[in-house]
Amino acid sequence: MEIPVVRNVLEANEKMAEHIRRMLSAKGILTLNLISSPGAGKTTLLEKTLRDLSKEFRMAVIEGDLQTDNDARRVAATGAQAVQINTDGGCHLDSNLVLSALDSLNLDAVDILFIENVGNLVCPVEFDCGEDAKVALLSVTEGDDKPEKYPLLFNLAKALVLNKTDLLPYVNFDMARARRSATKLNAGLEIFEVSCRKGDSLQGWYNWLRHMRTAKKKAVQNQN
Amino acid sequence: MEIPVVRNVLEANEKMAEHIRRMLSAKGILTLNLISSPGAGKTTLLEKTLRDLSKEFRMAVIEGDLQTDNDARRVAATGAQAVQINTDGGCHLDSNLVLSALDSLNLDAVDILFIENVGNLVCPVEFDCGEDAKVALLSVTEGDDKPEKYPLLFNLAKALVLNKTDLLPYVNFDMARARRSATKLNAGLEIFEVSCRKGDSLQGWYNWLRHMRTAKKKAVQNQN
Repeated sequence: MEIPVVRNVLEANEKMAEHIRRMLSAKGILTLNLISSPGAGKTTLLEKTLRDLSKEFRMAVIEGDLQTDNDARRVAATGAQAVQINTDGGCHLDSNLVLSALDSLNLDAVDILFIENVGNLVCPVEFDCGEDAKVALLSVTEGDDKPEKYPLLFNLAKALVLNKTDLLPYVNFDMARARRSATKLNAGLEIFEVSCRKGDSLQGWYNWLRHMRTAKKKAVQNQN
Repeated sequence: MEIPVVRNVLEANEKMAEHIRRMLSAKGILTLNLISSPGAGKTTLLEKTLRDLSKEFRMAVIEGDLQTDNDARRVAATGAQAVQINTDGGCHLDSNLVLSALDSLNLDAVDILFIENVGNLVCPVEFDCGEDAKVALLSVTEGDDKPEKYPLLFNLAKALVLNKTDLLPYVNFDMARARRSATKLNAGLEIFEVSCRKGDSLQGWYNWLRHMRTAKKKAVQNQN
């Protein structure tokens, strides 16, 4: 009884996501959907990125959380446009929620739109939000076995940010094993080892954003 | 369209969970459902507990994971009975999955049954698995804001294990804030600060298990 309904929900979500993708692409906006466990450092990565690249790009953030507007306030403090979605218990964002949040943003003043999904390594992966790419975050405190145990995200993401490298001396995390099992799932995955808290080694991530934004602009120009 | 179906699924789950609870209670088994984010330390807590209390209790574990039987193998290495459930992408265990796993255990040789749920701070909370109590785990690397942001688990759990205290010197985690927001959601919550990796401060947790197991035995004796 349940499966056809779930399938319809996913199909309806996909249609709406395509609509969002066309709308944002027409404006030349690069849209990235950030997915990770709770507390892996999505908001801290955004705080750093929004501050460090504020002169290069106009950036906006859609924050997804079950409760509170803590994260939207943290992000807005950097000067970026920010809007909070509260799912009220819902375990992931979807394209409908994202569409309604877009009304609160001035999209004519956005080069890069970040969607920070609900902290959850499973459910958000299944729901396209109209993004150009999914970005996975994994903190080294979570363990090097996570790509094997939660494969779909690592399979579908374009980039993986391995965060909290400043804690490597204090945890059992085999970086080679984590990289090996992630690239086994996804040979083209771009991997960045960073410490968002210390602000270490973010240049690779920033260069990837520059590259993705340039590619997006070119694709849009070719269409016009 | 979707809501009635979801409600039926939850109701059917609840019925089956009641059946499991009666069955396990009749045998005097204390059943605990462990819920946390990926990588918070559920399996490491179990490894320590199974080894340290092996002379006091006969313990068994049902391991829930999307993929791999890594965790069941880790747990079985302690000598405890262990069975792995692979949800194949599913974001939580439910009572049907638990019921089928029970077939693989010799329940006449179990005093305490641990259900290690899929790593997910959201979805497992909604699905009763026939347990006597939910136990929440939160590692200090995840941040002190998590009870506010994911309130339902902290509201429903009987105990909260705050893990990875050995990393407190290296992260921004306000223990008082975490405890305050958790107990605001749940005044009766038992809280244990531990480091499973170092094996520190586990006595409080062990005493709580002893207390819960004794209470269970008494309740069963009073019924007979």
